[in-house]
Amino acid sequence: MNSTGRIFRIGLFGESHGSGIGVTIDGCPPGIPLTPEDFNEDLGRRKAGKKGTTPRIEDDLPEIISGQFNGHTTGAPLTIMFRNRNVRSEDYTNLQETPRPGHADFVAWKRFKGFNDYRGGGHFSGRLTLCLVAAGVVAKKLISPVTIKAALISAGGQKDIEKAVSAALDEGDSIGGVVECRAAGIPLGWGEPFFDSVESVIAHLAFSIPAIKGVEFGSGFSASAMKGSAHNDPILDDTGRTATNNAGGISGGLTNGNELVYRIAVKPTSSISVSQSTFSTKSGRVEELKVKGRHDACIALRVPVVMEAITSIALADLKMLAESRS
Amino acid sequence: MNSTGRIFRIGLFGESHGSGIGVTIDGCPPGIPLTPEDFNEDLGRRKAGKKGTTPRIEDDLPEIISGQFNGHTTGAPLTIMFRNRNVRSEDYTNLQETPRPGHADFVAWKRFKGFNDYRGGGHFSGRLTLCLVAAGVVAKKLISPVTIKAALISAGGQKDIEKAVSAALDEGDSIGGVVECRAAGIPLGWGEPFFDSVESVIAHLAFSIPAIKGVEFGSGFSASAMKGSAHNDPILDDTGRTATNNAGGISGGLTNGNELVYRIAVKPTSSISVSQSTFSTKSGRVEELKVKGRHDACIALRVPVVMEAITSIALADLKMLAESRS
Amino acid sequence: MNSTGRIFRIGLFGESHGSGIGVTIDGCPPGIPLTPEDFNEDLGRRKAGKKGTTPRIEDDLPEIISGQFNGHTTGAPLTIMFRNRNVRSEDYTNLQETPRPGHADFVAWKRFKGFNDYRGGGHFSGRLTLCLVAAGVVAKKLISPVTIKAALISAGGQKDIEKAVSAALDEGDSIGGVVECRAAGIPLGWGEPFFDSVESVIAHLAFSIPAIKGVEFGSGFSASAMKGSAHNDPILDDTGRTATNNAGGISGGLTNGNELVYRIAVKPTSSISVSQSTFSTKSGRVEELKVKGRHDACIALRVPVVMEAITSIALADLKMLAESRS
Amino acid sequence: MNSTGRIFRIGLFGESHGSGIGVTIDGCPPGIPLTPEDFNEDLGRRKAGKKGTTPRIEDDLPEIISGQFNGHTTGAPLTIMFRNRNVRSEDYTNLQETPRPGHADFVAWKRFKGFNDYRGGGHFSGRLTLCLVAAGVVAKKLISPVTIKAALISAGGQKDIEKAVSAALDEGDSIGGVVECRAAGIPLGWGEPFFDSVESVIAHLAFSIPAIKGVEFGSGFSASAMKGSAHNDPILDDTGRTATNNAGGISGGLTNGNELVYRIAVKPTSSISVSQSTFSTKSGRVEELKVKGRHDACIALRVPVVMEAITSIALADLKMLAESRS
Repeated sequence: MNSTGRIFRIGLFGESHGSGIGVTIDGCPPGIPLTPEDFNEDLGRRKAGKKGTTPRIEDDLPEIISGQFNGHTTGAPLTIMFRNRNVRSEDYTNLQETPRPGHADFVAWKRFKGFNDYRGGGHFSGRLTLCLVAAGVVAKKLISPVTIKAALISAGGQKDIEKAVSAALDEGDSIGGVVECRAAGIPLGWGEPFFDSVESVIAHLAFSIPAIKGVEFGSGFSASAMKGSAHNDPILDDTGRTATNNAGGISGGLTNGNELVYRIAVKPTSSISVSQSTFSTKSGRVEELKVKGRHDACIALRVPVVMEAITSIALADLKMLAESRS
Repeated sequence: MNSTGRIFRIGLFGESHGSGIGVTIDGCPPGIPLTPEDFNEDLGRRKAGKKGTTPRIEDDLPEIISGQFNGHTTGAPLTIMFRNRNVRSEDYTNLQETPRPGHADFVAWKRFKGFNDYRGGGHFSGRLTLCLVAAGVVAKKLISPVTIKAALISAGGQKDIEKAVSAALDEGDSIGGVVECRAAGIPLGWGEPFFDSVESVIAHLAFSIPAIKGVEFGSGFSASAMKGSAHNDPILDDTGRTATNNAGGISGGLTNGNELVYRIAVKPTSSISVSQSTFSTKSGRVEELKVKGRHDACIALRVPVVMEAITSIALADLKMLAESRS
Repeated sequence: MNSTGRIFRIGLFGESHGSGIGVTIDGCPPGIPLTPEDFNEDLGRRKAGKKGTTPRIEDDLPEIISGQFNGHTTGAPLTIMFRNRNVRSEDYTNLQETPRPGHADFVAWKRFKGFNDYRGGGHFSGRLTLCLVAAGVVAKKLISPVTIKAALISAGGQKDIEKAVSAALDEGDSIGGVVECRAAGIPLGWGEPFFDSVESVIAHLAFSIPAIKGVEFGSGFSASAMKGSAHNDPILDDTGRTATNNAGGISGGLTNGNELVYRIAVKPTSSISVSQSTFSTKSGRVEELKVKGRHDACIALRVPVVMEAITSIALADLKMLAESRS
Repeated sequence: MNSTGRIFRIGLFGESHGSGIGVTIDGCPPGIPLTPEDFNEDLGRRKAGKKGTTPRIEDDLPEIISGQFNGHTTGAPLTIMFRNRNVRSEDYTNLQETPRPGHADFVAWKRFKGFNDYRGGGHFSGRLTLCLVAAGVVAKKLISPVTIKAALISAGGQKDIEKAVSAALDEGDSIGGVVECRAAGIPLGWGEPFFDSVESVIAHLAFSIPAIKGVEFGSGFSASAMKGSAHNDPILDDTGRTATNNAGGISGGLTNGNELVYRIAVKPTSSISVSQSTFSTKSGRVEELKVKGRHDACIALRVPVVMEAITSIALADLKMLAESRS
């Protein structure tokens, strides 16, 4: 299903090369100041155009269809749409027959029995993260004064990200990266034990972002090599402040009053210019494929604002859930 | 909330030292052969008693309260309960005042305003994974002939797990580990794009297991250091079989017909015998704490069967969801 | 929340005088033939213009934003939008201060703290039933060959509906009515005991239609005056066919193989031309109100196609749910 | 599925003649005073034993399995169980072959492919309303100081209920009834437009009670014969108080600050002593059936406390939902 959340629910729709894409937010309280301009900053950060990102540049002007009136949310469902304009679907016509390795083309074709909109990846396109970013703009307002900041901390395994991107571009190849998100100012007690743990809800959303291969909180995978005496974060005072933060700000599935810290692993973009072999559904044989279209050499460059968005969305829901039960 | 799933839904209840714990499975089809004996193997694998696990040993006899009749599931909600018997609550009486670092004691006390059942961690206890294992036994039947196998592949950062555990025991300390799960025989097309991607649903459940700090699929975090030309898995034939499996068996959020492979990072057990400092809510000062009670030196030893269970639960739901929409 | 359904989920958005209204269907299988023309008949039946319905006539041309490609559903979320064009919001400017009796104006204003879009009833408008009808068009395809037919069986308490409407029009007043729906060809076994009983799911949707005051199945309220020996429907053969149909086609919350029969009571339209008294939030006193705007003398005339729609939506979800668990 | 609710969720489990039945409440806030004795009054009201009710009398002692500690709710899932003791399953052995008309026996057997627990109606039994009443006891505490009172207002079509029941008993037959529920003290603004309207949520739960054939709010079915000028409730002051209450306390799906009033139609009990004809699945012919077992002549006598319970459950969820979004 394409909706998620308990109280602050979001639902995505749209395809990369259809008439448009959008998001409906159901459960947004009334009276939140909101204008189309509020989306500019985050949508701009996601936008391509920088070195290492696709030359396909969309205007990405949000149209608020519903749920907003006189510059504020109304409390009714908030639908935000983006028209697709800069579409060159002819680039993708051969993808039906020669599915791109690493991409969803082949499984989408099989699962949806040939009825999926294959153009530009259709509903599987990373373009739909635009809708996540839009929803994140609203969610950020709801969890204020919590501050969220994500950044790319390595690319292609290197700290010198610009250098790594340049090398990939030169080779017509792509690289992955690690993005870290930190959120400060979260009160103790958001989240639920077990199935709505903060980690569960955030990871659920994070893994909905195409290209994410891993999610880790606080000490993450390095915890597997640590001892309890080193890993346990000593509690310092009645606010729950700890001397270290191996927990990444979460205890027992609940925020513990410390900074929320987590990282995601982004795989290298599947669409690359270098030639690859794949199975042709037309010829029934493995063939060479050269992907046309416009691609990102390092999609991870565009992920931080998406990661901030899904973090905000998760926290907005957990905040409302925690408050509803207090 | 303590329930999860779209069609094959599970809900947990109970506290570590209350009268019992249990799980209700809602959405199980009728006619699945099921007897209390079916639980023996997996419950036995989870059970403590081995070197490095807690000396608290419960009978863990499942009582099927409902949803089973004449040796088969009835199609009505299936509730399985376990009585708590081997309880030594007096071990935990001082935890109210001196919350264990790394454990949920402090946040639970704050969040639930002092009304939580603190004995043995209450509802936050790892004992509730017993219910996940029980639900997994049923889920495994539903996804047959898919085979699922999880194993501890490192402990304390070492491959020689037995040696690592011995060292931790000698020190009265604890160690973490990495557990890997592999599932074979999954048809192409389970899962959904975006919010019910296979990764999203599995990670949601995996992060509900106490002590999990990270989840990665296929190439996982190492993907961040790879190039697209190396990471993309070439498709070999019409079944979707690929030459490599960096995707971990998932493309675009859907199973792609290859082996599902993922790993979780388990932190070292919070409860250790070595002395630690923590904030005393009674004295209002940081004090030394020596945790009594019976603990695991390497809780990761008991995680594989739990990981198999949550994998089966996730796949059962996604299978039913995929089939409902085909 | 504005979404409902387990597998075949629908979500509404939009306001009466905003930029548009729409519905997202999540969970529609791929490969269902669907074009904008498919909506003509049912949208036409709902449309005003007949005697006794509002002179506000919208084009009501559906725009399929997503989920459809090459004349078929894709399996991705299906969003259908309708632009609002024939809007005369100035008719409604005084409703903020003098809320219409019987309408949601006052409670919407209080609940949403003055931020609701009050124009034409905003999100509370009956105009949103257009979206239900659109979703119903899709749902009807999914449950084919089940046939569904609803009809107005009384208006203003009379069987001669045309005469009753004429009288109401003459008086500048409005009248209510009873609409009956019959569905044939439903297999035995859709629905669930207790919380997803056929009655529960249908009534949930029926009561989401503005102006509905009652829902009854089969013998309905008259059952309260009957004896068991007369009410029980004798089973005649192995298909479950019964001699009478007091059950209305439902036993134990599940379809029983007989015709589904239920009725809804529609109240008289709240907006009437005759003068009424209401509390003025501006003056703080009770004042006379003459409602401007364009209204229906008998909104029940337009309800049958909406009732067919929500019946189809409910059955589509229950069908998919039943099949997912068989 | 057998769970319902957005924030205050309840899930039922159990069969009439299995080891027990129970309910899990997920989402109950911590700190609500709760002891087993709190259930006595409402469970006693539901209990059989009065004239016109079944001679099967169970102790119905609630066992609180989880979610309660030191006399208060803990905030963790609250599971309440009732053991089945006074079971005479031999009464039901022939029901497999000769399904009772008006009961779920036949459809349950077909839908669940013969695997359902048929004894005493199994999961379809009215005995599970015991769990609804138990959940209602908790819900009533959450919505305090709202007061809820339901009463049987007619039986067998007569106001002299005792006389009607006596007549039915004499004939070995059963009668239906109408139960009315009134709730006072509900603040304006609980509920949601469309899919979580107060009517939708209450009707969803009401129709989960076995034997309910109709639900109507305020003027109900009589509204269909009224004119708008008579039906509209004039608003009198800034609290939303109205001169009449045809709305039954609900406008636009939201509580409007006036008394909530609704009625349900209860059919006559299906199980009667007089001989009936039904299809025998054994002989393949229509045969005479004389239902053994212990039955209610007027099950409606026991419904008021169940109706109060489901009203409380619905309101508790809607209250928490409204407050979460304010």
